[in-house]
Amino acid sequence: MTILHQAITAGALSLPQPYLLFLGDAAERGYAKTALGLADWAGDRCVGEFVLPECTVTTGLARMTPAEAHARGARSLLIGVANIGGVIPERWLGALVEALEAGLDLVSGLHERLSDIPVLAKEAARLGRQLIDVRSPPPGIPTGSGRKRSGKRLLTVGTDCALGKKYTALALAEGIRARGVAADFRASGQTGIMIAGAGMPMDAVVSDFLAGAAELLSPDAADDHWDVIEGQGSLFHPAYAAVSLGLLHGSQPDVFVVCHLPGRETIMGMPQFPIPSIRAVIDQTIALGSLTNPAIRCAGISLNTAALDAAAAEAEIAALAEAYGLPVADPVRGGPALERLIDSCLA
Amino acid sequence: MTILHQAITAGALSLPQPYLLFLGDAAERGYAKTALGLADWAGDRCVGEFVLPECTVTTGLARMTPAEAHARGARSLLIGVANIGGVIPERWLGALVEALEAGLDLVSGLHERLSDIPVLAKEAARLGRQLIDVRSPPPGIPTGSGRKRSGKRLLTVGTDCALGKKYTALALAEGIRARGVAADFRASGQTGIMIAGAGMPMDAVVSDFLAGAAELLSPDAADDHWDVIEGQGSLFHPAYAAVSLGLLHGSQPDVFVVCHLPGRETIMGMPQFPIPSIRAVIDQTIALGSLTNPAIRCAGISLNTAALDAAAAEAEIAALAEAYGLPVADPVRGGPALERLIDSCLA
Repeated sequence: MTILHQAITAGALSLPQPYLLFLGDAAERGYAKTALGLADWAGDRCVGEFVLPECTVTTGLARMTPAEAHARGARSLLIGVANIGGVIPERWLGALVEALEAGLDLVSGLHERLSDIPVLAKEAARLGRQLIDVRSPPPGIPTGSGRKRSGKRLLTVGTDCALGKKYTALALAEGIRARGVAADFRASGQTGIMIAGAGMPMDAVVSDFLAGAAELLSPDAADDHWDVIEGQGSLFHPAYAAVSLGLLHGSQPDVFVVCHLPGRETIMGMPQFPIPSIRAVIDQTIALGSLTNPAIRCAGISLNTAALDAAAAEAEIAALAEAYGLPVADPVRGGPALERLIDSCLA
Repeated sequence: MTILHQAITAGALSLPQPYLLFLGDAAERGYAKTALGLADWAGDRCVGEFVLPECTVTTGLARMTPAEAHARGARSLLIGVANIGGVIPERWLGALVEALEAGLDLVSGLHERLSDIPVLAKEAARLGRQLIDVRSPPPGIPTGSGRKRSGKRLLTVGTDCALGKKYTALALAEGIRARGVAADFRASGQTGIMIAGAGMPMDAVVSDFLAGAAELLSPDAADDHWDVIEGQGSLFHPAYAAVSLGLLHGSQPDVFVVCHLPGRETIMGMPQFPIPSIRAVIDQTIALGSLTNPAIRCAGISLNTAALDAAAAEAEIAALAEAYGLPVADPVRGGPALERLIDSCLA
């Protein structure tokens, strides 16, 4: 296994698309969060949905069998439903085998690995299909080299976890492309990888290879091409700062955008740790990021104002822009503020 | 396997001691570096050495068979010899099986895993012996909690890899104990783990669990007890800084000692990256370490003067002590300078 891994050319994970979204027997939308997110963010790369008879949830995409999806070009069945404990229940297995028989690979982000389920391992081997666990890093990741790569890089960083780093990176990549500038969203977490169809599950990489994994995620590119890299965690997170630092060092960003959620006072799930100031995040990101890119700079701030009404959001954005002398925008609200943030990134 | 792992109470790796040191067919001392280091640093926990007829190297310990070693109390055979590529050659297998049959577990730090060799896996299962790969982290590591633990902690940090962080931690732990203060050396790398008989291979831990692994390595202790933790890498290393940061955050050190090798100008193997100044390492360690221990302080500098004669070493130590206003010592040379460094750690 080790030898096989080393023989493969190293690279980020790559998922076979388009997808057929599997909703299983979901009876509540909360359990189908992954499928619903995929339909929203990558609807053009989803041919439809596939459900068990008990399912009462829909993504709004056409319902079809794996064979029908395969005929329409689908290359994989993506498990878009979560179960308590992240396991794959026995009642799904018939449907999953049906997908393998129809010519589809399987893609999962659940805790339980597809290849640990004997019937799936056996059928996939017999039919020559892939079982892809998005939580498993690809083989052959090298240690970091520190070598400067060609092309431009933007990294979203945060004052905490789960406050908009993925969404901001997706919106900035889209906004940059809308100006006719080549840009790729580079996913560093499971949901992002499913949306992009490729990426690197940074939190699952063995620590010695973190910077090397980030280097693989944004390879050499044309000089005017932008990689917009989804950030992870926070340099001020007592559990996950190491993941953030490995991603920062390996990404060598030219530009970063700080993501923040006004009103969150302490690190999520860790009430004894206050949220750092945006200033502290800017200073620390520059101090640490300059090791692999001395030209690193902060392009602005992405503010998650989902909990505020329009007037309050605008006031908060204006106050922060004044305080920091930087462009501030909520990418969900878009508008001129977002355009100014993109201007600053590309400047 | 996953379920089994979760059922085990989480903790650092623990190796069965005392050891019988296996030198295989080593014909050069360089290949037997691990065994020679063990004999030097943990000679009191090695009952002897076991060799193949072709071996021309000795640790100086008594030669004996696995059965003789078992009769003298040995609990494991430690593979103290390295092979090109880190593999276990077929010509060792008879000797390794002999050790299993004699009642010894096997301990290895080689790249190839013991349990991936069918005859060893089969014989170990049949006889109820353990196959312990020191490169494999123990099961059940949690994510970091950031919770403040009782007891005192000292961490060695460095301007680079491979310049004396393990040696310094071993010498400081010994020096603290010599004053009648309770202290444990906490190993974070493979050689250190073999010497201590326990520890955490930080560089092999999945990145999400780095800080949690460091928290396990130095658990709650008596208020006047010192854990002296072996550092890894450097916060200024473009490939390994994440490992250093996870270890720093999880260790919550009260005190750190900066290890430095005068004359090394660039990061080992990365000539484009200059070695940071000791001042930069002190400032960055305080800036980042204060997240989980706001009282963190630098106790002094450990200087590796192996390449200097006594007079030059003394001059270098005096100059640095003057420049930084901190105790500076080479733990290998010991003497009053080392005692002053220990004073500063315990202050």
